[in-house]
Amino acid sequence: MTHSNPSSQIRLNPISPTYWRVTFDNPPLNLMGPEFVLRFREIMTAIETDAQLKVVVFDSAVEGFFLNHSDFTAKFEDLTAIPAGPTGLASWPDILVRLTRTSVVSIALIRGRATGNGSELALACDMCFVSREKTLLSQWEVGVGLVAGGGPMTRLPRLIGRGRALEVLLSSDDITGELAQIYGYANRALPDAQLDQFVDKLARRIASFDKWAITNTKRLVNAASLPPDVEMQAGWDTCMESFVRPAAQTRVKALMARGFHEPGDAENRLGEYIGSQT
Amino acid sequence: MTHSNPSSQIRLNPISPTYWRVTFDNPPLNLMGPEFVLRFREIMTAIETDAQLKVVVFDSAVEGFFLNHSDFTAKFEDLTAIPAGPTGLASWPDILVRLTRTSVVSIALIRGRATGNGSELALACDMCFVSREKTLLSQWEVGVGLVAGGGPMTRLPRLIGRGRALEVLLSSDDITGELAQIYGYANRALPDAQLDQFVDKLARRIASFDKWAITNTKRLVNAASLPPDVEMQAGWDTCMESFVRPAAQTRVKALMARGFHEPGDAENRLGEYIGSQT
Amino acid sequence: MTHSNPSSQIRLNPISPTYWRVTFDNPPLNLMGPEFVLRFREIMTAIETDAQLKVVVFDSAVEGFFLNHSDFTAKFEDLTAIPAGPTGLASWPDILVRLTRTSVVSIALIRGRATGNGSELALACDMCFVSREKTLLSQWEVGVGLVAGGGPMTRLPRLIGRGRALEVLLSSDDITGELAQIYGYANRALPDAQLDQFVDKLARRIASFDKWAITNTKRLVNAASLPPDVEMQAGWDTCMESFVRPAAQTRVKALMARGFHEPGDAENRLGEYIGSQT
Repeated sequence: MTHSNPSSQIRLNPISPTYWRVTFDNPPLNLMGPEFVLRFREIMTAIETDAQLKVVVFDSAVEGFFLNHSDFTAKFEDLTAIPAGPTGLASWPDILVRLTRTSVVSIALIRGRATGNGSELALACDMCFVSREKTLLSQWEVGVGLVAGGGPMTRLPRLIGRGRALEVLLSSDDITGELAQIYGYANRALPDAQLDQFVDKLARRIASFDKWAITNTKRLVNAASLPPDVEMQAGWDTCMESFVRPAAQTRVKALMARGFHEPGDAENRLGEYIGSQT
Repeated sequence: MTHSNPSSQIRLNPISPTYWRVTFDNPPLNLMGPEFVLRFREIMTAIETDAQLKVVVFDSAVEGFFLNHSDFTAKFEDLTAIPAGPTGLASWPDILVRLTRTSVVSIALIRGRATGNGSELALACDMCFVSREKTLLSQWEVGVGLVAGGGPMTRLPRLIGRGRALEVLLSSDDITGELAQIYGYANRALPDAQLDQFVDKLARRIASFDKWAITNTKRLVNAASLPPDVEMQAGWDTCMESFVRPAAQTRVKALMARGFHEPGDAENRLGEYIGSQT
Repeated sequence: MTHSNPSSQIRLNPISPTYWRVTFDNPPLNLMGPEFVLRFREIMTAIETDAQLKVVVFDSAVEGFFLNHSDFTAKFEDLTAIPAGPTGLASWPDILVRLTRTSVVSIALIRGRATGNGSELALACDMCFVSREKTLLSQWEVGVGLVAGGGPMTRLPRLIGRGRALEVLLSSDDITGELAQIYGYANRALPDAQLDQFVDKLARRIASFDKWAITNTKRLVNAASLPPDVEMQAGWDTCMESFVRPAAQTRVKALMARGFHEPGDAENRLGEYIGSQT
């Protein structure tokens, strides 16, 4: 997996002073490596510190992939070497926690696969709208002997209830847009042809409102709904522990031998591939 | 907006010693002013102190409106001058908190618009059934620079999850009966022609059960599900702060110039109007 | 009601070292008496102590009944005489709490009626899949003057929200498979013809994954989602108190005179029968 200029892996596009787009553009699979995390952290700081910004929409420029699992060809040390962020959490959970806390409203516009990091980002956004036909959400980690690191164990049960959260996490299977709406994993699954316009209209609508009212309303919702940081931390620590276990190393390696990390069936139909390990 | 005899704004109708109806009847828009709150408080005390009562159903006698936002033509001082209630909270959140805690079972039967106070009442009721065709639920406050005062920031995330709660509150848009069922904002959206009979049958059914069993079951559900009063208080305080800000005053005034507070499009299609401010 | 050999009331069937079936087989109604509880406790200990087991599926061998309410013809003292379990809770809530905490993944496969204990078991399982056509879930207790003892007051609001939880508990009515999916009471309602294969495939899938990853993922979900034991205890204590009240004794006796505890309409259409007491 070659690494292009990190600043090009995520594009920041201000539609207006109050409404930005952040577009994931790391073809062909929108994997997340250490450089991607560093670039995301820069953008997170920009979101937090801009005085006028009210709404940020996350989307993808890569066909078939909103945001994908971690890049297993990257050096593990390059990820763990990134210093902790201002929350005291490691870089990736730090970004996600800051996104939930900032007064800027975040909307995930999901078309294509949102697996691992992609699902974790969706769960950290304030809202999440997905393409009914072209979305697969998943937390695939348990299926390869890993534990997820970006908070789904603490966020999913609060969002969709314990039973459905355990199904998503322990089955490690792909969840379609339609099921994501039924489960409440996404706000709504919209017909693909309407998704872009729907999200753009909603973003512009919220961006037209008073920032003080937005900020204080989100602050009070957060008080009632955000998990404690210690649960994010515990998930991350367990994820790190799982990475170096032989069970995970063996399973990830076996999946790579079947085409994982390359465009094609293993990535497109990951849920099925995970279910047919030998 | 003329104020009729306050006792006529809400009608209390005992169907039987164990089953009462409380009917909102403040035409043409079922707005809530200070007199409405005072009358509601009297009824709340009657509900709490009756020894035989088991079920109360809230409905409306006003075509198109279950219960609407506050009356902005009323004097703000008339509202803030009402002494705090027994919970220590201001009058409106006090009524809502007492409704959740009383052993009497409350059911909202919603046909027409339930905006602001109407939605807050629905969220404080033990159950909520809505007309599939004729219901619009909304928390419109952020759209005019306000913060909601009756608890939706603390109740909605617990009921429908953080993402959908933030969408309802930050979009400030109208939510149809059908979407309310999908989101879990209402228990169920029933065909309009079946709604009255369904709720009446359910109310009579529960009213036929043993009061001790009802009381203790609700008490234990409450222990697992009610938000802390401090979150209700924080929401109310922020609401009061938002009312006097120029951002809200300007936006409400502009909406009034377009027909708000009068029968017609601005009230009927409030979500759209809020989205098309200039 | 004759009591057969207790060990035959629940059958333990290891499909493989990592995947067991536990089948309720107490015809004709799958009632739960003291012997059933003792047998379930043995099985719970076996589940907890087996080193290889990863998934257990609960199902029924009795046509029309997954798992039913308690056996009211059994001696109350035989139930209360069972010593508390390792959690310090009484035998039935002890089993349910241990099921939620064990690292073994539990799946309820529900076809037929799951009333009282049956619903409480479903709520304690990690996942629950039901037959769309042939399932009725219910917490019937309030309808006969009882309070439920196995935790639905604390689990249901966390799973399906306060409003729907209060409806299920206070209406004491039968909930169809379709409504159970809409409410999130079950993970999914599947066409009856697909249910067995779906659950078996899911169980085998999870059983093929790494036990350490399963264990740690479930542990972290539990931290975010399980109710405190004190709420289970409070529910059980109130249930015991309700049992000996004349209101419950009279109502249960009246229902027995109408065919309750025998195969037939009173058991099959329990929700209707409860709603037509005189």
